[in-house]
Amino acid sequence: MEVQEYLKKAAQTVDVALDSLIPKQSTKPASIHKAMRYSLFAGGKRLRPALALAAAEACGGALEAALHAACAVECIHTYSLIHDDLPCMDDDDLRRGRPTCHIVFGEGLAVLAGDSLLTLAFEILAQAQPTSRYGIADFVRELSVASGSRWLIAGQVLDLESEGKPVSKSALKFIHQAKTAALLTCALRLGAMSANVTPSKLKALTDFGQALGLAFQVIDDILDVTQSTEKLGKTAGKDVKAFKATYPALFGLKKSRALAAELTEEALSALKPLGKKAVMMRGIAESLLVREY
Amino acid sequence: MEVQEYLKKAAQTVDVALDSLIPKQSTKPASIHKAMRYSLFAGGKRLRPALALAAAEACGGALEAALHAACAVECIHTYSLIHDDLPCMDDDDLRRGRPTCHIVFGEGLAVLAGDSLLTLAFEILAQAQPTSRYGIADFVRELSVASGSRWLIAGQVLDLESEGKPVSKSALKFIHQAKTAALLTCALRLGAMSANVTPSKLKALTDFGQALGLAFQVIDDILDVTQSTEKLGKTAGKDVKAFKATYPALFGLKKSRALAAELTEEALSALKPLGKKAVMMRGIAESLLVREY
Repeated sequence: MEVQEYLKKAAQTVDVALDSLIPKQSTKPASIHKAMRYSLFAGGKRLRPALALAAAEACGGALEAALHAACAVECIHTYSLIHDDLPCMDDDDLRRGRPTCHIVFGEGLAVLAGDSLLTLAFEILAQAQPTSRYGIADFVRELSVASGSRWLIAGQVLDLESEGKPVSKSALKFIHQAKTAALLTCALRLGAMSANVTPSKLKALTDFGQALGLAFQVIDDILDVTQSTEKLGKTAGKDVKAFKATYPALFGLKKSRALAAELTEEALSALKPLGKKAVMMRGIAESLLVREY
Repeated sequence: MEVQEYLKKAAQTVDVALDSLIPKQSTKPASIHKAMRYSLFAGGKRLRPALALAAAEACGGALEAALHAACAVECIHTYSLIHDDLPCMDDDDLRRGRPTCHIVFGEGLAVLAGDSLLTLAFEILAQAQPTSRYGIADFVRELSVASGSRWLIAGQVLDLESEGKPVSKSALKFIHQAKTAALLTCALRLGAMSANVTPSKLKALTDFGQALGLAFQVIDDILDVTQSTEKLGKTAGKDVKAFKATYPALFGLKKSRALAAELTEEALSALKPLGKKAVMMRGIAESLLVREY
């Protein structure tokens, strides 16, 4: 199967699962469930859940075993976008090509929709099947640590605090690791754990995720300055405007592109212990390097 | 032991446990951990965790078995207060006698501190000890449902949406059940589950919690109009000012007081199946009826 076809099918599978796991739009109070669904079904690429499913398969498991984990990670990702877009944070009114949650539903409901998706992520994760090596406590610890105040949220905190200030290269790297690589790695790990992965393969996937996550964010920084708002589905050139620390700002475009390629190579090389079964993950990593949005 | 002494000791035990479970103030990024600790250690009464501990003891378990559950519930309670106080929600600048989180740390960091405490609640809960009847999945499901978009968050949504509008008695009851009784009941249930409670006793505690939670919120509504800001540690008379639906507004003060007493009786009667071991919970319910803040 081609990478793009795999990603498309994974996204469809995840969308069907999410639709069954999220309260219906008519569930009272309707407004909050409408807001949650608005942001969750806004045509996201479903990269993180696709990585969870691909990791499960690369570890010899069935894609289905990782579905709850995949959906939980996507709920976390979507909540973080809703909150990051708030006026008191990055103040953005466009996301995935549509007005952001607070523009449509108001700030109060947007905060609560984010809170609800964050909470729901754990409700969904608790429905996963434990394996002989990993229990629900392991799954929950994995997701809560990656999305908590030392990783995902830390990234947003440092991002906010670094606006308009000079940022060292190592500080920028940590922001990107926390903001992007941690949850992406978590998706891979949860998918692999759902397939009862061995510790050594789990380590390989972790290394893969950390390099891939950094590459992904470097490319994101590049696209912010090279692509149009229309193509990105979110406001282009925003990082520059907000005087945000980015790779192009610190290294220039050419060096940033070389770095993204280097990190992708590093990611691919980390996959070796998984052998041929990792073919789809290799394909995904390569496709992310040349993505245009 | 006297009720007040028990509550005081429970609060101390919970404070020590929370202090060891929350990242240190110096953990990077320091700002977020400072904000989390500011709101968490603001002198809250620790009623919910105390109920979790008392429920565990009433079910023949050790207080220690319920400590993780108790701390997780308090993290959820504190996050909900931080987010409810935001300018886009209830817009309050005083809580537990101190400036609210967003007044001290700014709105962006307050949103993220709430998010962090919500996420941490599940990290802490995952460290609880499963029992023969209840696994970590049961604990996580319990907390996520009670604090999710159908209960705790639903209460805040309806509260926001009902401001300045006429609200029926049944709608007001549901808001109070969702906003207050659900998490309070959850604390009791998690405490009892930590002590491997039987299904019939769990049902009794659930009935107790629902009646007690409603009584607690009716009393809260009464105190909002009868007590000073100084005594309450939060802005008094606020519900009236915001044209909020409250029991005194709908029923008058006298009838509200009678209703609170009636609900407390109902709660006490639900405790019967627990026999003498429920003595402390009975005492807590009685003390809440006559509380002044």
